[in-house]
Amino acid sequence: MANVIRASVVQSCTARFNLSETLDKFESLTRLAKERDGTQLVVFPEAFIGGYPKGSTFSCFVGERLPEGRDEFVKYYNASIEIPSPATERIAEVSKATGVFVVMGVIERDGGTLYCTAIFVDPVEGLVAKHRKILPTACERFIWGQGDGSTLPVLGKKFQSCVEPSHTVNTKISATICWENYVPLLRTYYYSLGTQIYCAPTVDSRETWQSSMRHIAFEGRCFVLSACQFATEKDYPPDHAGVDASNRNPDNVMINGGSVIISPLGQVLAGPTRQAEDILTADLDLDDVVRGKFDLDTVGHYSRPDSTTPSFHLP
Amino acid sequence: MANVIRASVVQSCTARFNLSETLDKFESLTRLAKERDGTQLVVFPEAFIGGYPKGSTFSCFVGERLPEGRDEFVKYYNASIEIPSPATERIAEVSKATGVFVVMGVIERDGGTLYCTAIFVDPVEGLVAKHRKILPTACERFIWGQGDGSTLPVLGKKFQSCVEPSHTVNTKISATICWENYVPLLRTYYYSLGTQIYCAPTVDSRETWQSSMRHIAFEGRCFVLSACQFATEKDYPPDHAGVDASNRNPDNVMINGGSVIISPLGQVLAGPTRQAEDILTADLDLDDVVRGKFDLDTVGHYSRPDSTTPSFHLP
Amino acid sequence: MANVIRASVVQSCTARFNLSETLDKFESLTRLAKERDGTQLVVFPEAFIGGYPKGSTFSCFVGERLPEGRDEFVKYYNASIEIPSPATERIAEVSKATGVFVVMGVIERDGGTLYCTAIFVDPVEGLVAKHRKILPTACERFIWGQGDGSTLPVLGKKFQSCVEPSHTVNTKISATICWENYVPLLRTYYYSLGTQIYCAPTVDSRETWQSSMRHIAFEGRCFVLSACQFATEKDYPPDHAGVDASNRNPDNVMINGGSVIISPLGQVLAGPTRQAEDILTADLDLDDVVRGKFDLDTVGHYSRPDSTTPSFHLP
Amino acid sequence: MANVIRASVVQSCTARFNLSETLDKFESLTRLAKERDGTQLVVFPEAFIGGYPKGSTFSCFVGERLPEGRDEFVKYYNASIEIPSPATERIAEVSKATGVFVVMGVIERDGGTLYCTAIFVDPVEGLVAKHRKILPTACERFIWGQGDGSTLPVLGKKFQSCVEPSHTVNTKISATICWENYVPLLRTYYYSLGTQIYCAPTVDSRETWQSSMRHIAFEGRCFVLSACQFATEKDYPPDHAGVDASNRNPDNVMINGGSVIISPLGQVLAGPTRQAEDILTADLDLDDVVRGKFDLDTVGHYSRPDSTTPSFHLP
Amino acid sequence: MANVIRASVVQSCTARFNLSETLDKFESLTRLAKERDGTQLVVFPEAFIGGYPKGSTFSCFVGERLPEGRDEFVKYYNASIEIPSPATERIAEVSKATGVFVVMGVIERDGGTLYCTAIFVDPVEGLVAKHRKILPTACERFIWGQGDGSTLPVLGKKFQSCVEPSHTVNTKISATICWENYVPLLRTYYYSLGTQIYCAPTVDSRETWQSSMRHIAFEGRCFVLSACQFATEKDYPPDHAGVDASNRNPDNVMINGGSVIISPLGQVLAGPTRQAEDILTADLDLDDVVRGKFDLDTVGHYSRPDSTTPSFHLP
Amino acid sequence: MANVIRASVVQSCTARFNLSETLDKFESLTRLAKERDGTQLVVFPEAFIGGYPKGSTFSCFVGERLPEGRDEFVKYYNASIEIPSPATERIAEVSKATGVFVVMGVIERDGGTLYCTAIFVDPVEGLVAKHRKILPTACERFIWGQGDGSTLPVLGKKFQSCVEPSHTVNTKISATICWENYVPLLRTYYYSLGTQIYCAPTVDSRETWQSSMRHIAFEGRCFVLSACQFATEKDYPPDHAGVDASNRNPDNVMINGGSVIISPLGQVLAGPTRQAEDILTADLDLDDVVRGKFDLDTVGHYSRPDSTTPSFHLP
Repeated sequence: MANVIRASVVQSCTARFNLSETLDKFESLTRLAKERDGTQLVVFPEAFIGGYPKGSTFSCFVGERLPEGRDEFVKYYNASIEIPSPATERIAEVSKATGVFVVMGVIERDGGTLYCTAIFVDPVEGLVAKHRKILPTACERFIWGQGDGSTLPVLGKKFQSCVEPSHTVNTKISATICWENYVPLLRTYYYSLGTQIYCAPTVDSRETWQSSMRHIAFEGRCFVLSACQFATEKDYPPDHAGVDASNRNPDNVMINGGSVIISPLGQVLAGPTRQAEDILTADLDLDDVVRGKFDLDTVGHYSRPDSTTPSFHLP
Repeated sequence: MANVIRASVVQSCTARFNLSETLDKFESLTRLAKERDGTQLVVFPEAFIGGYPKGSTFSCFVGERLPEGRDEFVKYYNASIEIPSPATERIAEVSKATGVFVVMGVIERDGGTLYCTAIFVDPVEGLVAKHRKILPTACERFIWGQGDGSTLPVLGKKFQSCVEPSHTVNTKISATICWENYVPLLRTYYYSLGTQIYCAPTVDSRETWQSSMRHIAFEGRCFVLSACQFATEKDYPPDHAGVDASNRNPDNVMINGGSVIISPLGQVLAGPTRQAEDILTADLDLDDVVRGKFDLDTVGHYSRPDSTTPSFHLP
Repeated sequence: MANVIRASVVQSCTARFNLSETLDKFESLTRLAKERDGTQLVVFPEAFIGGYPKGSTFSCFVGERLPEGRDEFVKYYNASIEIPSPATERIAEVSKATGVFVVMGVIERDGGTLYCTAIFVDPVEGLVAKHRKILPTACERFIWGQGDGSTLPVLGKKFQSCVEPSHTVNTKISATICWENYVPLLRTYYYSLGTQIYCAPTVDSRETWQSSMRHIAFEGRCFVLSACQFATEKDYPPDHAGVDASNRNPDNVMINGGSVIISPLGQVLAGPTRQAEDILTADLDLDDVVRGKFDLDTVGHYSRPDSTTPSFHLP
Repeated sequence: MANVIRASVVQSCTARFNLSETLDKFESLTRLAKERDGTQLVVFPEAFIGGYPKGSTFSCFVGERLPEGRDEFVKYYNASIEIPSPATERIAEVSKATGVFVVMGVIERDGGTLYCTAIFVDPVEGLVAKHRKILPTACERFIWGQGDGSTLPVLGKKFQSCVEPSHTVNTKISATICWENYVPLLRTYYYSLGTQIYCAPTVDSRETWQSSMRHIAFEGRCFVLSACQFATEKDYPPDHAGVDASNRNPDNVMINGGSVIISPLGQVLAGPTRQAEDILTADLDLDDVVRGKFDLDTVGHYSRPDSTTPSFHLP
Repeated sequence: MANVIRASVVQSCTARFNLSETLDKFESLTRLAKERDGTQLVVFPEAFIGGYPKGSTFSCFVGERLPEGRDEFVKYYNASIEIPSPATERIAEVSKATGVFVVMGVIERDGGTLYCTAIFVDPVEGLVAKHRKILPTACERFIWGQGDGSTLPVLGKKFQSCVEPSHTVNTKISATICWENYVPLLRTYYYSLGTQIYCAPTVDSRETWQSSMRHIAFEGRCFVLSACQFATEKDYPPDHAGVDASNRNPDNVMINGGSVIISPLGQVLAGPTRQAEDILTADLDLDDVVRGKFDLDTVGHYSRPDSTTPSFHLP
Repeated sequence: MANVIRASVVQSCTARFNLSETLDKFESLTRLAKERDGTQLVVFPEAFIGGYPKGSTFSCFVGERLPEGRDEFVKYYNASIEIPSPATERIAEVSKATGVFVVMGVIERDGGTLYCTAIFVDPVEGLVAKHRKILPTACERFIWGQGDGSTLPVLGKKFQSCVEPSHTVNTKISATICWENYVPLLRTYYYSLGTQIYCAPTVDSRETWQSSMRHIAFEGRCFVLSACQFATEKDYPPDHAGVDASNRNPDNVMINGGSVIISPLGQVLAGPTRQAEDILTADLDLDDVVRGKFDLDTVGHYSRPDSTTPSFHLP
C-alpha cells in the first residue's frame, strides 16, 4: 500500500496572452495545490503559457494570407517563450520552492517557428525535458510546427510515498497533447517505454474527450491526468481576432474545461470538472498499474511481438 | 445524402451451447431485423455460435490440468464448428433468403485447436472471409489459439442505398473481437486498410466498454457496431462448470449486454441496451466517415509517415 | 465414448526375400488379427515386402563398387514390387475379404531406383496412397532413393465405431518410416495435416526407439503404432551377404522387434513386444486426441504462427 | 579424448518465493558442485528465482478476474527480477568466484509483464544472454508473456578440458524451458544453430518427460541437461493460493524432480533423481556430438534442404 | 542371365536418293543381319530413306533464295515418303518376314514440310510409332521442320530371350537423331520414361561423336546403338548440288561412318566401324541397366526431385 | 585474337590427410604454375583439402554402424575445414601473392555435416563463392551431405588478356564436382547461366571420364578443366581404413589421375595426364565459345523454350 503519490490537474487559462500575469497565476495555483491538497505533481493545460487563439483564422484562406494575419502572428509569436528562458527559470523556482513536479503546456518559440510544447520541471533538477506536439490539428497547422521523435520523453521520477514517507515510489511520466491522444502509434510508443502517469494537457472540451481518457487509461493501464483550459472571452485580449467584433460577450465560454483524473482500470478518480478554475487531486497507487497489466499489457503479454513492432523511429 | 445504409447489432446469446437451437435463434433474429427494421447488415456477438464458457476454469491450475477439464474441453470442442461446414452453409442460406449481410462471432475448430473467430457472410457470395482473434485474454488462452496476420480482412462491399435504391454505396467492413479492441497496433492496421464499418462482437459488458467504443469511433473515424451477449444462467447447460453447483440461480446474469452503434464523430446512434434480447438499428451515412477524416485521419494526414509505420506483418 | 476403433501392429519379418511366401504370411497374420482380436487396422513393419538386407554392404567402398555388389542389387531389385502390381492387388483382396485397413512397409521399384515405401490399402477402395521414405539412413542411401513432397499423405478414413457400431469414427492416418521419425520438420508437417493415427513401420529395435515413440505421441497428441520386424538368420536367404559366411547361425537375431502402441498422452497401450511373431491390439479412443490437444497443439494454439511456418514444400 | 568438460544439473527449489534466501541456496549449491564434483557448468530449474506458483488460479475464470487474483499477481510480480539487476549481479559474482558457468530459470519482470526466462552467466563476462520462453502452457498464459525470436541464443563458449587442462574445448549452449521442448520447430531452430549442450530447465516431473529428454538428445545429437524443481508445500509461502487452505500438509510433494543428463546417442549419463535436493554431474565428451551426427544430422545431411526451411523468423 | 537380346546397327547409305533401290538395300541388309548374326533389332542411320543432301546450300543466302534452290528442294521433296505409305508397308513386310524390329531414319513429307524422322516397325504390329527430330542443325533448318512433344515415344517391347528362348525380356526403346543427342533436357525426358535401348541414328561422323555416345550410355545407364551413314560421292546423284562440279571424285568420302554399340557402363560392345557398309551386332544383357542404375540413376536416386523437374512438356 | 587467358589444371593429392602439409603443396604447385607457365587460373582436384577416403566403409552396413566407424568419422571431420577459416585465408594469401585465381575441391565442415565443396578464390577479392556437391555417390552418402540450390554460382570474372595485356577478358566460371557431371539438369542450369570455364574437380580416373569431359565441352560449348587426384597408398595415413591391413603396398595406385583440358568444340588442348604430380596449362580463347555456339546452344537457339524449362529451383 506504500506505492502511492498525490497528483493534481489544474483547470485554468492563459491571462489575456500576458506572460507575467500568466506566470503569477501558475505560481498561486501551484502553491494552492500544495498547501490545500498536499500535491506532489501538477499538470497544467495545453498552451497555458502563450495561449490558445481560439476562433482565429489568422486571415488565412486557401491560396491567400492577408497582411493583418501576419501582424496577428507577430503578436502571438511575441507572447511565446524560448526553452530555456527566464520564464522557464521562474517555473523552476516555484517548483523548487513548493517541491511540486510540474507538467505544463507552453507555446515554444524556436527560430521562426512556434511549437505546442509540454515541459517537465523537477523541484530539484529544474527543467528536465520537453515534448513538442507532433501533429497539430487543422488550422493549428498554420501557426505551429511539428515536433519529432527527439522530444518524446518518458521520465523516470522517484517520489516520496505520500502514505509512508520513508518509502520511495518509482514512476514514469509522459505527456501527450490534445489530439495526439488520437494517434494510436504514438500512444503505443509511450506504453512501450512504460509510462504510468500519462499527462494529457488539452483544450478539447468535447463530451467525447471523456470517453477517450477512460479508454486510454484502460488500454494503457496507466493513470491519465487530463488538464483542460477553461476560458471565456474576457480571458482573451479585447481585440482577439477569434471573436466576431460585432458580437462580443465577456462571459461567452471559449473553452469549456473537463479536466479529469482516471485510474489504470478506467475508473474516474476525480472530475470531470466544468468549473472555470479548479484543482482536482487524487492519490495514485502505482501498484494499480501492475494489477491492471495482469490481464492487459499491450506492449507485453498482450502484444504479438513477432508480427508487430511498436514503431516510432527516432529521427 | 444517398450514401446511406441501414445496419443492426443483435444482443442475444448462445442457446445452451446447442448448435441447431442457436442457428434457429440466428435465423429468427435476422428475419426480424429485416422485416421490422429493414436492415441490410447485422452484427452478432462474440462466440454466438459455440458459446462463451463464462466462469469456467476447465480445471486448470498453474502447472496442472485435471482430467475433468479435458472432458469439459471435449464437450466445448464438439460444440464448435469448422469453417466452412453445414453451419456456415445454413447461415449463408438465411443471408441469401433475407438479403442481409452477416458478421458473427463463432468458435472455430481447426485440427486440435479452437479459435474465437468472426465470419463474414454475403447474401450473394455466401461465406467470404473470417477473422481469428489474435489475442485471447487471460483464461481464454487455455481454450483458444491465436489468429495471425493471414486473417485480418477488411472487406469491400457494395450495398444498395437505403434512401435512394438506385444508388450504390461502397463500404469497407472489418471485425475486431472483444479485447482486441484494446490493441492499438491492430486497430491502426484496420484503419490503414480503410475500415468504415468497424464491427466489434464482444462479451465485455463493463461500463468502460462504452468509453472505448466511442473513443475508437472518434479515433478511427468509422462507424462502430458493437454487439454483446446478454446471458443468464438458464442460457447455459444445466451442468455448466462456470457456475458453482451449490449456488445455481437461473436468473443470474452471466453477461450483461451493452450493445451500441456509434458514429465516426463519436456520437451514440443507438443503445447502449441492457435488454436480454434486443436489436438496435441505425442508418449509417458513409459520408460521415469523410466528414470525420477532414480533421483526423490517423493513417493519413494525421500520421507521421516519416517516423512511424503502421506495422502489422503478415505471416 | 463412441469414437473408438480397434487397431493392431504386427511384429514379423519377410520370408527369405520370397514374395509369395511373404504375402502368405501377410494374409494369415491379417486374418488372425481380425478373427482373434477383431481389429480394424493393421500396421506391418518397414520393408516387410522386399526385405531389409541387414548387414550387407553391397560391396561398396568410398569411391568404388565391386561387380558382386551390382549382382546383389539385381537380386534385391527383382525381389521388390511395383505399385500398383499383382502384389498390391493381392494385399487389396485380403483387405477386402477381412475388412481390415492395411498400412505396410514395402520395397518399391520405379525405373532403376528402389524406394522404401509404405502403402495404404482400404477394404473398399483398395490401394489408396503411398509414402516414400524421404531420408534413407547411412548405407540405405546406396540402395534406396529419396521420396519427395508428393508422397506425404495424411488420409481421411471413416471407421465403424468398435463399441457402438451405428456410430461413424472419423480418423486421419499417416506413416513415417524408421529414422524419418527423427526429422522434426517432417513430423510437424504430418501434425499440421492433422494425423491422429501415426503409423511408424521400422526396423530400429534399439531401446531408445521406445523413448522416441512415447515422445512423438505426446508431442503430436496422436496415437503411435510402431511395427518393427523381428528376424533371425533363418529368415534370410541362406547366402545373404549381410552375414559373414564363416559364422552363420540360423538363430542369430538380426532385428529384435519392439513393436508398441502408445496413446496421445504418451501412455503405452500395448507392448513393447520382443516375441518373434506377435500381434498387439488396442482400442483407440479418438477423443483422446482432443483431450491431449487441450494443452498442447504444436500446430495450433501451441505454435507461434507469425514467426514460424511448418515448411514442407511440395515439389 | 581431450574434448571433455564436466557439467551438472541441480535439483532444488525456490525458497518460499524469497529472493535473498533463494540466492543463498544458489550460492551454496554452486559452491558444492564445484568443490565436491569439480563441475564447470551448472543448470538450475525453471523459475528457480521468482518461483513456480503451482496450483494457483490467480482467481481467473473464463471472462472474469477477481481483485484477489490481481493482488496475488502484485506479490508474484514483486518477487520477480529485472535483467540486469542486483540479483543477476550476485549470480555473476558467484559464477566469477567459482569459475562455474550458470544456466538458470528465473521469472523476469519487464514493464507490466512477467516472462519465464533462462539466463546465461559466464565466470568472466558475467550475464551474457537470456532466453524468454516463447510458449507458456495453459494457466501460465495469464501470468507470463511470450518471448519472441530476439531471445533465442545459442552461445559459443570455450572451456578448459577437464581431462587435459591445456586443451580448449569449444561448445555451444542453449536453453529450452519446460514444454517448449515439445515444439519441434523451436528445437530445429536450436539444432540449426549447432547447440551441443542443450539445457532444459523445467518443472515437469512426469514419467513421459524422461522419454522426451532421451528422444531429444538422440534427435538433436546433443547432450541434454534437464534440471527440474523438487518442492514440497513447506517450500512455498504459508498462504500460497495454490494449496487448498483446509488441506495443508508441509510434506506434500508439489513438484517431483526427475533431473537427468543424457548423451547425444540417447544414453542416460546421470539420474533421473527423485531426491529433494541433488546435484548430478557427468563428463561430456564433445566428440560424441560428431560421432552422433555421423548418421543423423537433422539440419545437415539428414535434412532435405531444398524442400524444407528451418523457419524461425526473428521479429 | 536370361534377360538378353541381340541387336545390330547398320552402317550404310541412301542409294542415290532413289527410294526403291534404298528399300532393296534395307531388305538385303536386314536379312543378312538376321541370317548371319541372328539379330532381333536393327537400327538404320538418319535419313536413310530420303537421303542427307550433304554439302548443299539449296542456293540460299541470307535474305535470298535462287530459283535453282527451289528446284533442288522439289527433287528432294519428291524423294521423301509419307507415313504411313507404301514404303512403310514394304518395311513392315520385311520386318514381319524376318522377325526383326526396325528403327530407321527417314525423310518424312507432311504437307509442304519435310521432317527428319525415325520410325519404329514391329514384326507383328507393323509401324508402331515415329519420332520427328525436334531441333534441326544449321542449314538443315531451311529444309526440315521441327518435331514437337507429340512424337517422343519410349516403346515397351517384349522380346524372346536370345539365350533362353522360353524367357520373355521386357525392354524400352527410344530414338534420338544426330545432334538432338546434345540436348540434355531431351535426353533426361527419355531417361525419365525409362529408355533402355537408346537408338541414335546420325550422320555425324566426327571423332567427338564417340565420346558423346559413351557419355550418354554412362549417364543414362542404357544401351546406345548409334547407326551412322557411310557415303561417298558415287552414292549421291551425279548432279548433287552439294559437290563442286569442277572437282568431282566418286571416291570422295561424304559421310565417314563410326557406328557403334555401347553398354550402360560406357563400355564399347561393338565398333566403331569406318567400313562403307557394315553390320555391328551385340548381345544386350538388360540386367546391366539395373547394375548400372545401382550407383547412378539421374531420374531416380541420383536426382534432386524437390528442386528439379524433368521438364519436357507435351504440346 | 585478344580474348585469351592462360589456365591450368593441377594433378596432385592430399598429403596424408594433413592440412598444413597439403596447404604447402597447394602453395608450391600454384607458384610453379605461375612461374613456369604464367598461368592465371588453376583448378585443383575434388577433396584436395580434407582428402578422399578411398576404399573405406566407415564400418557401415545396411542397418548398422560400428563404433570404430564413428571414430573414423571424427578423424575425418577434424581434417576438414570451415568456410571461411584460416585455411581459406591462407589460400587467399597465395592467390593474392601470385595473382592466380583458384578453384579447389575441399571437404567443408558445417555443424555436424561434411560437404564436398569447391571454393573460388580471387587474387583481389579473396574467397568469393563456394559450390556444394548436390549429389554424393554411393558410400559418399554416409560421409557427405547434399548441397542445394543456394550454392550453384556462375562467377563473372575479368582477366587481363595473356596475349594483349591492355585488353580485358570477360569470363564466366563454374564448378561441377565428380559425378555431378552426370546430372544433365544441373549442367543445363550452369549452361543457362552462361558458364564458359567449366571446372570439373574429380577423383574419377576411369577411361569413360575422358569421353564425358569431351561430350560436356561439346554439348555446353565451354572449356572443360578437369583436375583429378593421383594418389598412392603412401599418400594416405598409414592406418587408412580403406586399405586391407594385411595387404598394404605404399606404391599401390589408389586414384589414377587423368586430368585434362578441352575446348568448346570437344578438342583436347592438354592431357590427359597419368603422372603422379603434373600441371597442364593451355591458352583459352574465349571467342571459341562464341564460335561453338554458332551451331549449338542448348539453352538458346538449340533449345525448345515452348516445351522445356531449364528447371533448377533455388531453395
